[in-house]
Parts: sequence; structure tokens; C-alpha cells
Amino acid sequence: MEYKRFENTVVLRIDKGEEIIKSLEKLSKAENIKLAETSAIGAVDDFTVGVFKTNEKKYYSNNFKGSYEIVSLSGTVNTMNDEFYCHLHMSAGDETGRVFGGHLNYAFVSATCEMIIKIINGKVNRKYSSETGLNLFCFE
Amino acid sequence: MEYKRFENTVVLRIDKGEEIIKSLEKLSKAENIKLAETSAIGAVDDFTVGVFKTNEKKYYSNNFKGSYEIVSLSGTVNTMNDEFYCHLHMSAGDETGRVFGGHLNYAFVSATCEMIIKIINGKVNRKYSSETGLNLFCFE
Amino acid sequence: MEYKRFENTVVLRIDKGEEIIKSLEKLSKAENIKLAETSAIGAVDDFTVGVFKTNEKKYYSNNFKGSYEIVSLSGTVNTMNDEFYCHLHMSAGDETGRVFGGHLNYAFVSATCEMIIKIINGKVNRKYSSETGLNLFCFE
Repeated sequence: MEYKRFENTVVLRIDKGEEIIKSLEKLSKAENIKLAETSAIGAVDDFTVGVFKTNEKKYYSNNFKGSYEIVSLSGTVNTMNDEFYCHLHMSAGDETGRVFGGHLNYAFVSATCEMIIKIINGKVNRKYSSETGLNLFCFE
Repeated sequence: MEYKRFENTVVLRIDKGEEIIKSLEKLSKAENIKLAETSAIGAVDDFTVGVFKTNEKKYYSNNFKGSYEIVSLSGTVNTMNDEFYCHLHMSAGDETGRVFGGHLNYAFVSATCEMIIKIINGKVNRKYSSETGLNLFCFE
Repeated sequence: MEYKRFENTVVLRIDKGEEIIKSLEKLSKAENIKLAETSAIGAVDDFTVGVFKTNEKKYYSNNFKGSYEIVSLSGTVNTMNDEFYCHLHMSAGDETGRVFGGHLNYAFVSATCEMIIKIINGKVNRKYSSETGLNLFCFE
């Protein structure tokens, strides 16, 4: 990976073989990013995305391997217990154009991934919610 | 819903059972937002999206119920006759990862929805276009 | 097409029959945009998207005709050899809600396309990479 920061915007290139969430964590720590919105495009060849079934409070995931182009990757970097936290959802198209996606567990870059990180001057923590079984934005 | 504003960016959490467009309207009125770009991720269990057939000037919609993760939700808040107006498109993945989407009519949150609203200092109205049968951006 | 610039944000309306990438190029040249992030929604009736197969270094594309709503369109405007360059991925839903997408070659607007261009104060060139067979972000 390699990047350049322009004021509160970072342009990040994630390279072949690198994992997207790990790369974003590395960048966020290097640049001391506490709160940011992110979006990306690129190509991936191995990714796992899933769905949280609210009634069961259980997460179901699917792994995809092959040639895929990211068509949407969005979410935020923020903090939980003042530590790095990120929550991303992703979708990607296969060679017939069909698109698959969900909550992102991991994605390995096959060619390149071009991510834009927009830093927000502020801080939002997360707190575990027993009602949903998830770590939710907490504005206290 | 609950939110925090950081300069021209709002971080919004929409909660279980709340509808996304209604929540964005409530926020926009509370914060007097006239023009903004928005994006979100989250989980929904009941949403209607559709397609406008230009040749027929008719809108066809589909309702989806079940466990879905929003993979893209984007569009704008602006004004028409100086009143709140918003135009959003959304897509969401099901438990097999397949993604469905279109013009957003409504979406109910099942777990949480995390939306970022980027306020633009300015104003863009809409005007009805008889050629397309739609309310289009008007820069006059 | 018609647009209005608010500081570093441009709100662009692309009209029926116009092609999206050509419109973005026209805007970028008119406003002297060297680096920007973009996102859009809208309706299209003829678009080609594809997948780059990294192992073959070959690009496979699919054309879609009919009534489609853009659910994600993201990427960047930047430069290569100091000339305009843009890299966009797009996905769009059909009348049953199914979503198709990939790397964007071209897309013709059927009703309207509403694009937000966020200009970044800076410059990022591209350089051909023989390893991937693609033009990658170059931060030198």
C-alpha cells in the first residue's frame, strides 16, 4: 500500500495480495485517524461478506473467489474503547456482471484498490447493544 | 435515531424499526440542511426500490422482506419549492450475498443504519420536467 | 448537462442521451479539476461494465440495455501524464431489482443522472504497471 494525504483527505492505493481492512487499519494508525468516512473501488479475488440475522442475533457469511470488481465499498473508521474500529460493507461484480455483497469480513486485492478516506474532525465511540447484539455508534 | 454534527458533517445512527427517509427528513429539518450528499450502510428488513421506465414515464417497484445488508445508499438532500426534498438509491445483499436495488421508496432498519451526511454550503432546487416526467435539479 | 460549483463541491446534472464519462470529462476540463472523488445516482438505458482478469491481464465486459437505476457509481478523477483521467465503477438495478455492475466503460443517461464531485486540493498521477497491466495511482 501507498498513500498521500491532502488536508483531511487521504488517497490510498492498496496493492495485489493485500487485505483491505488490514490496510485501512494500518493507514488509520499511521495517520492517527479517529473518525472518517471511506469509499473505494478496485479488484478483488477472495472476499467474505455476510448478513446479520437480527431475530437470531447470528451472522451468516459467504465467501467468493474469482475475478470480481468492487462496485461499492463504504463505511466508517471510528473508535471503540478509544481503539481503532472500522465498519465496512462491500459489493462486487463478477465476470457476468452479477453483483454480490454484504457486511465485509475481509477482501484480498487482486490488481489494485483505490480508496478515498475523508477524515472528520471529531470522535464517535461504539458501545455494545444487548438489544441488537451489535456495537452501535455512541454519541455520549 | 441519534446524531452528532461535526462542522459540515453529520454522523447519524438510525435505529431498529425506524424508516431511513423519514429519519433523514427529521435530521435535515432539525439541522436546517438545504443541500447535502449522503451515504450509508446498515441492515434492513423491509424495503421498496424501483425503476422508472423512461419510455412509459411509469415507475415499477419491488418490495423485499427478510435479512438484508445495505451495500450502497447514496443521493442528495436538496429542496423543491424551498421545501425538503431527498433523492436516494439503495442496494442491499441477502443471505446468499445477492444484491438487489434501485430508486429508494422506503427502508426499515432491522439492526442499525450508519449514515454520513455531508452538508454543502449552497442551495439547489428541483423543477418538474414534462420531458422526463421527473423533478430534476434546477440551477437557476 | 448543467452544473453548479459550491467551493470544492460540484453538483452536476447529466441529461437524457448524454454519456456519463464524457460529461465528467467535460466538467473536469471546464472547472480545471485535477483530483476529485465522485459519486452519482440516476437512470441509464445502455451501459458496459466489466471485469479485469488479473491472471490473464485481459478485460471482459458486458453490455446491458433496458431500464436500469444506478445504485452505485464511484471513483476518481485524477491525471496521467498530467492529462485528464478517470476511473469509475458502477452498478445498476433492473426492473426486478437485480443489480449488475463492474468497471465502467460507458453509460448513457435515460432520464437524469445526479453526480456530486468533491474536488481534492492536490494531484495524483497514474503510471502503467507491467506487473498488473493497469495504470495505477503513483504518488511520486
